[in-house]
Amino acid sequence: MKVCKFGGTSVASAEQVKKVAAIVQSDEQRRFVVVSAPGKRDSADIKVTDLLIDLANAVIAGEEIEDKIQAVVKRYEENAQGLGLDREISDIIEADLRTRCEQAIKVSPEYVLDSLKASGEDNNAKMIAMYFNSIGIEARYVSPKEGLVVNEPPARTMALSEAYNNLSSLKDSNEIIVFPGFFGYTAQGVLRTFDRGGSDITGAILAAAVGADIYENFTDVDCVFSANPKVVNNPAEITEITYREMRELSYAGFSVFHDEALMPVFKLKIPVNIKNTNNPASPGTRIVSESTINRRPVTGISADAGFSILYVSKYLMNREIGFGRKLLQILEEENISYEHTPSGLDDISVIIRSHQVDPEKEQRIVKRVYDELHADDVHFRHGFSMIVVVGEGMNNNTGLAARAATAISRTGANIEMINQGSSEVSLSFGVKQQFEDAILKALYEEFFQPVNV
Amino acid sequence: MKVCKFGGTSVASAEQVKKVAAIVQSDEQRRFVVVSAPGKRDSADIKVTDLLIDLANAVIAGEEIEDKIQAVVKRYEENAQGLGLDREISDIIEADLRTRCEQAIKVSPEYVLDSLKASGEDNNAKMIAMYFNSIGIEARYVSPKEGLVVNEPPARTMALSEAYNNLSSLKDSNEIIVFPGFFGYTAQGVLRTFDRGGSDITGAILAAAVGADIYENFTDVDCVFSANPKVVNNPAEITEITYREMRELSYAGFSVFHDEALMPVFKLKIPVNIKNTNNPASPGTRIVSESTINRRPVTGISADAGFSILYVSKYLMNREIGFGRKLLQILEEENISYEHTPSGLDDISVIIRSHQVDPEKEQRIVKRVYDELHADDVHFRHGFSMIVVVGEGMNNNTGLAARAATAISRTGANIEMINQGSSEVSLSFGVKQQFEDAILKALYEEFFQPVNV
Repeated sequence: MKVCKFGGTSVASAEQVKKVAAIVQSDEQRRFVVVSAPGKRDSADIKVTDLLIDLANAVIAGEEIEDKIQAVVKRYEENAQGLGLDREISDIIEADLRTRCEQAIKVSPEYVLDSLKASGEDNNAKMIAMYFNSIGIEARYVSPKEGLVVNEPPARTMALSEAYNNLSSLKDSNEIIVFPGFFGYTAQGVLRTFDRGGSDITGAILAAAVGADIYENFTDVDCVFSANPKVVNNPAEITEITYREMRELSYAGFSVFHDEALMPVFKLKIPVNIKNTNNPASPGTRIVSESTINRRPVTGISADAGFSILYVSKYLMNREIGFGRKLLQILEEENISYEHTPSGLDDISVIIRSHQVDPEKEQRIVKRVYDELHADDVHFRHGFSMIVVVGEGMNNNTGLAARAATAISRTGANIEMINQGSSEVSLSFGVKQQFEDAILKALYEEFFQPVNV
Repeated sequence: MKVCKFGGTSVASAEQVKKVAAIVQSDEQRRFVVVSAPGKRDSADIKVTDLLIDLANAVIAGEEIEDKIQAVVKRYEENAQGLGLDREISDIIEADLRTRCEQAIKVSPEYVLDSLKASGEDNNAKMIAMYFNSIGIEARYVSPKEGLVVNEPPARTMALSEAYNNLSSLKDSNEIIVFPGFFGYTAQGVLRTFDRGGSDITGAILAAAVGADIYENFTDVDCVFSANPKVVNNPAEITEITYREMRELSYAGFSVFHDEALMPVFKLKIPVNIKNTNNPASPGTRIVSESTINRRPVTGISADAGFSILYVSKYLMNREIGFGRKLLQILEEENISYEHTPSGLDDISVIIRSHQVDPEKEQRIVKRVYDELHADDVHFRHGFSMIVVVGEGMNNNTGLAARAATAISRTGANIEMINQGSSEVSLSFGVKQQFEDAILKALYEEFFQPVNV
């Protein structure tokens, strides 16, 4: 049994929705279809979600909304016409939008935004279910109201454990289930959107609930690449990647999934298959819990700019039990998360994302470290990039770190920081930002383009 | 002005004390002499300190002590005779020992041990001052009672700030000051020994108090070597090393100083010169605060066995602000200090000295990390060595990490952990213990024996 999630561009137009139908029809294992709101049909287009946000803001501001409602309805209508559906669905959608505008404003401005944004997925699911039936695919729209129970605010929206129990009965359905992504309902019936991971997380929840054999995630690319294609020419396609590798690569250039989205399937070790709606024959990239095929030692290389280093030194630091812990506590109290903490005997560096600090905060932290930890030297340095070489096959691969460091040194860059833990799934290098692209290219050449002698 | 400290073997016999006198006479800047108790004259000999511990134990046990007192007195007497001194000094020492035995036992058994151990340095200082005067060197024995004020128990013995003020007046003395190492007195006049660093710390305190230009530390080796001579054949001599480098190298094979001993001179940036009493013409090794000469990028390489790795993984670990801090807190509560904490996105390794854990403690820690941090995987691994490559010149030396990693890979060893902070004075590698010697040799070859082409 497969749960298939289709992203915004996969359901942007009638033509795209027909591809979705063909994909579902081509494999009887595909019993669950999770859909996003219609995305952009071309680069000049506006996503339905953005039209809905525009409408919500008008409702909140008490402005005229008629044109904005019509703009949304028109998008659905165009798709409906292209799919050969009659006006009924457009009327349903228009009525739904008007009800949401009227009801939601009585709750709160935030709720207007949530409710209208969620309507993008919700109404699209209704229309796609209707289309499936019109061409002979027995399908049923299911609302998240039928079981996708989420927690109460203000905590970030998450599915409760009963959601999985509730939704599991759907696996016995004779019809294809068409389910809108992106939102659920509290036990009190209040709609809440997933602020991160959106429709991906709905698909993962459903896949986990019904015990899917695979979670197919349809998007508009054939696969995940082993390096950022904007920097490296024609990087190798990744056919299989482990969850761990995927996570370690989740720096820039690899933001295929929001990292929390896969949690439900990760826990049950359900493989994920990233596929292309526009080229479903391509095998895509499989995300698995354990590597099943022989692969290169390195699976991917990611790089990201915008890192800073907090450097702290103190003579006899290593004699002070608790020094590192106290330093991290100060950062925690400043609400700063860190990436790595390489250390010498008398010094420790904390690598953080630069956006977390400003000059005032830096000054405060530096002062606290001097005052509370009696350090000899405390300062921030900025403008670093992190390059991460990732691969399950790196473990026990003698000489791989040497090859990586040698490749970097060929660019003339100095390695400011190296981090390799004993899991050895990743090897991180901190370098000055200006060397980032050159290093990414050099590492790619080293591990993916062995020179023919 | 120079403060000279002479270690146990430098003052073990009359012949050695004559070398000390010659060294002092050869440079009028040498105004302060700090002495240890007489050490071993040959490998079969017993140190005076050990004879004193033997005596102290007899006093504490209420056993017959006459033979043991005579054993100590005899050692001094042999030296006195060799130095052409008359019986007066032996009588002084014998009377001093008897007084200590009688008085100290009234205080506590621990005090018997402290008082008698300290007598080793104290009486040796008296004798050497007497010898200096007998050969025309104007010298004066000064007791630590005259100013070396230390803190009250039970905190570890440390000089109080007034000690530096008190002792500073000694710089105006016309006589050479002969000062016993290893102990001071509380404000109440109670003797306390320095439990770590012994005479080295007394010398450093005195050097700081009088504002010495240099602190000469005489021992029985010409210099500090760039690698353990027991593993590497004829390693290069280090002529200059910074305090930082010295500290980073303070793993096995580099235990020249207890690391706290140099704190007083480190604070005032007074250089330390390690010299050989038996070969004073050799320039020795200078420990400085800032490097003054052009040197190799790598100053030394140390290696030490006996490390363990605590490995912790948890999906989405990097999203949890405070995870690393909480983990370190658990270790802190178990009174465990750590060396490094390399990390990936979903895992963190904590490198610790193995002697800090036992199976029971490990089990408790693993359980706590599972229970309190809800980790996915927690386990200890043992049998690792840390190899540390150290050099101020490593900073901005492109390709050095690559050379080190490549040299290690030539031994066939896998690098389990790499750590390089942004201070870049050191680069640490965690490897399986059995590769330690081979790696030390390989790194030495790489950085100290460039192949002639």
